[in-house]
Amino acid sequence: MAKTNPGRFFEDYAVGDVLRHAVPRTVSGGERALYHALYPARHALYSSDEFARGCGLPEAPLDDLAAFHLVFGKTVPDVSLNAVANLGYAEGRWHRPVYAGDTLRAESEVIGVKQNSNGKSGVVYVRTRGLNQHDDLVLDYVRWVMVRKGDLDAPAPQTVIPDLQNVIRAEDLVVPAGLQFDSYDFVQAGEAHRLADYEIGEQIDHVDGVTVEEAEHMLATRLWQNTAKVHFDTTARPDGSRLIYGGHVISMARALSFNGLANAQTIVGLNGGAHANPCTSGMTIRAWSEVLDKAETGVPGVGAIRLRLVATSGGEPFALRGDDGKYLPEVLLDLDYWALMPV
Amino acid sequence: MAKTNPGRFFEDYAVGDVLRHAVPRTVSGGERALYHALYPARHALYSSDEFARGCGLPEAPLDDLAAFHLVFGKTVPDVSLNAVANLGYAEGRWHRPVYAGDTLRAESEVIGVKQNSNGKSGVVYVRTRGLNQHDDLVLDYVRWVMVRKGDLDAPAPQTVIPDLQNVIRAEDLVVPAGLQFDSYDFVQAGEAHRLADYEIGEQIDHVDGVTVEEAEHMLATRLWQNTAKVHFDTTARPDGSRLIYGGHVISMARALSFNGLANAQTIVGLNGGAHANPCTSGMTIRAWSEVLDKAETGVPGVGAIRLRLVATSGGEPFALRGDDGKYLPEVLLDLDYWALMPV
Amino acid sequence: MAKTNPGRFFEDYAVGDVLRHAVPRTVSGGERALYHALYPARHALYSSDEFARGCGLPEAPLDDLAAFHLVFGKTVPDVSLNAVANLGYAEGRWHRPVYAGDTLRAESEVIGVKQNSNGKSGVVYVRTRGLNQHDDLVLDYVRWVMVRKGDLDAPAPQTVIPDLQNVIRAEDLVVPAGLQFDSYDFVQAGEAHRLADYEIGEQIDHVDGVTVEEAEHMLATRLWQNTAKVHFDTTARPDGSRLIYGGHVISMARALSFNGLANAQTIVGLNGGAHANPCTSGMTIRAWSEVLDKAETGVPGVGAIRLRLVATSGGEPFALRGDDGKYLPEVLLDLDYWALMPV
Repeated sequence: MAKTNPGRFFEDYAVGDVLRHAVPRTVSGGERALYHALYPARHALYSSDEFARGCGLPEAPLDDLAAFHLVFGKTVPDVSLNAVANLGYAEGRWHRPVYAGDTLRAESEVIGVKQNSNGKSGVVYVRTRGLNQHDDLVLDYVRWVMVRKGDLDAPAPQTVIPDLQNVIRAEDLVVPAGLQFDSYDFVQAGEAHRLADYEIGEQIDHVDGVTVEEAEHMLATRLWQNTAKVHFDTTARPDGSRLIYGGHVISMARALSFNGLANAQTIVGLNGGAHANPCTSGMTIRAWSEVLDKAETGVPGVGAIRLRLVATSGGEPFALRGDDGKYLPEVLLDLDYWALMPV
Repeated sequence: MAKTNPGRFFEDYAVGDVLRHAVPRTVSGGERALYHALYPARHALYSSDEFARGCGLPEAPLDDLAAFHLVFGKTVPDVSLNAVANLGYAEGRWHRPVYAGDTLRAESEVIGVKQNSNGKSGVVYVRTRGLNQHDDLVLDYVRWVMVRKGDLDAPAPQTVIPDLQNVIRAEDLVVPAGLQFDSYDFVQAGEAHRLADYEIGEQIDHVDGVTVEEAEHMLATRLWQNTAKVHFDTTARPDGSRLIYGGHVISMARALSFNGLANAQTIVGLNGGAHANPCTSGMTIRAWSEVLDKAETGVPGVGAIRLRLVATSGGEPFALRGDDGKYLPEVLLDLDYWALMPV
Repeated sequence: MAKTNPGRFFEDYAVGDVLRHAVPRTVSGGERALYHALYPARHALYSSDEFARGCGLPEAPLDDLAAFHLVFGKTVPDVSLNAVANLGYAEGRWHRPVYAGDTLRAESEVIGVKQNSNGKSGVVYVRTRGLNQHDDLVLDYVRWVMVRKGDLDAPAPQTVIPDLQNVIRAEDLVVPAGLQFDSYDFVQAGEAHRLADYEIGEQIDHVDGVTVEEAEHMLATRLWQNTAKVHFDTTARPDGSRLIYGGHVISMARALSFNGLANAQTIVGLNGGAHANPCTSGMTIRAWSEVLDKAETGVPGVGAIRLRLVATSGGEPFALRGDDGKYLPEVLLDLDYWALMPV
């Protein structure tokens, strides 16, 4: 009886399957400190218990993206061990903050499958849920990946492509219970800009850059218990490079975006995202943002800002695609998300 | 009066001496988080407070090997500062888990000495005990090292070689108080294999590999307050390389062994171990295991599995020694340990 | 409206201005564990809750230098983003320890300005205060930096140079409330030397060295939320190197000084300091100390030792300046501080 996990192949997924992912994880102040060591994270709500209490939360939560990475990491052995590519995200929502002492687990439902015309692989759509120790929903999102077939003779399943929203409607965003910005301290937060100060279409160059190192992205990726070989093993890719986990780029870019978006405190929605080009050690990650939309939430004083967050390894800010409509080679990430901000 | 520690030389050890090692250490969630960042550790009992409670423990302990490294680190200034080689381990037992808030200290008793025939060095045997803030024994083990003489004219001591067990008897293994696997959740643990599914002689290739970096092994080795120069200082060895702490290889291999041994949750015995060849930055560590024995413990449902854990920097799995009987050059570690597993 | 922080230029500072720095920070066991992973820190008072309780404190505090770095980091966006050089420190005092759960914030008062004769830059003196969640003073210090002018036509301000003490008087040092060394455990602390064993003028070579890596200094500098570009971005300096945060060198040297000064437990005063030469990745940091003074404090049994701590990247110990009176090129740091030690 083989003991190691060979991962699932395309033919192993059927719409309606629910995969209970292994290895629940309890977080502490240790994960919070490491997040601050790995990324230049400075959003005050996640840095200071006092600031968080001033905003109606019991203490500073773990960064929203750390919660995302932890949940994502759990799915890797069941979803993407044999994946050829991580194709997209949609309908990601954060439902409640994660605090020190919380234990996260994850499960994914297969919501779509489509075999590729070459017969060698297919696309699998899953909706992943992160749950805490009370079985409360912490976050959920849809992800689709291209997965190899293990048995090329396995019959093609009936194609099911889920109907996914391009953008989460503002009224579907969840404001964490208790969160309010009535006595928000803009000085302590680091910038004076409120939602009213941002215009739709406005672009912000976040200026700073971080040159990334192998040791750092591996520490991060292990911290999320993400086991995909390509992030750790120089013998796993033909060119001997280690592919940096896309979530590392997301967190780096989001942290860099503090400079210009310090008050976009809480990530509540992930509308979509593309890892446009691979990131490897030695690249200097920069970021720019574009305001895509603004909206009210059900909580007075708490607004929602929809942002495009682009990470690059160089080039001019605000350049995204070439004349051919494809991402420029220096674009690493194109992310579309909702955050909460004082109105 | 010289203020710095010159370390002890061979002639400074006498059988019966008890060395009280310095710098007690309190651990927190920080050490636990760092362990997960440094190694691809996924054993559920050490990852999730909820899982640990399901197994009868109050919360997830610090990884057993982290406790070992912390105790080991304390011994370095007194035992191995002038060591030429770390020769072996025996009779290692874990007596109780370490939890956040516990403070560890260590002491070692000299239990054997044997001067080498060259008159320039000798072998020192110590039994090291790790104790917590209640003076409870946390773990103990025997280690022997070759130590240089400081004064070549010092007389050779009477040779004392301790009588050490090759293998800890199963009845001498300590099951942590309260531990039970009656409602063990194999799905959350990550694999379905119970002790009955493993056969003596079975070999498991753990498949995954991690290419190691200087920054990571130094972070780890400092975390355990291990001060041996060769791990940190490129000027300390003729070739300018830093020798990776052998315990870093042990933890890396043990974490990799999750894939195939996810239910070998708790390390309770260290029968022996050899650091077969030095590990340096840039190597890709892989691991394979061999089931050496299986046994019952005093707790129904909790079985013991005796495993050989081999870490390599390449080569074929399951290759250990050449025709000359020596370890193959790519073998880094050959460890013999007992772990607890659902029967 | 520009959204990113351009930093302040010389003409933006006026004596009497108080800058409230952004992003308060709550610390936990995570920051403490990371400090031990980043530096070979072994002072027992900061390593063990039990040892700290034996010295009258409620638990082991965060390392004093970690508190300093956290406060320093907060000042960077307001004080040194456009700095040409960090010129000096004075009158640094630690007023109370920082414990897990404490939240630190910082503010700086401009206490001096002097435009340079070239009209392109000037020196700004600030007194920075670190405060906890109870608005208690945690530490304060004076720092002066050379800052570029943004508008070369801005008029030169009236020169104000603060009157700073070269050395903090022993009677002005603050012994943390409750601290006593009456039942001090020299064995657990690691060395037998008490204040009486040190002579003024005595020099100590701390022997050990650590070769520094990019990943490590960036982890540390981010942990302190220090955002200065030169530490992270290989494109920010003409030679493509990353300049290691001076505080990283301070902490490394202080940790190395354990070997010979294990009982200089608590840093209570910073008399001055110079980052003599830049530190970059690959250098092997060593340290030596010189006893500059000894004094009583108001607490019987608790003495103060004034130390010069020199970090180097090579060369002979105790060599500091060349015949020209300038620091030797291998000298990285020349720090003058007070620490508390059993008499």
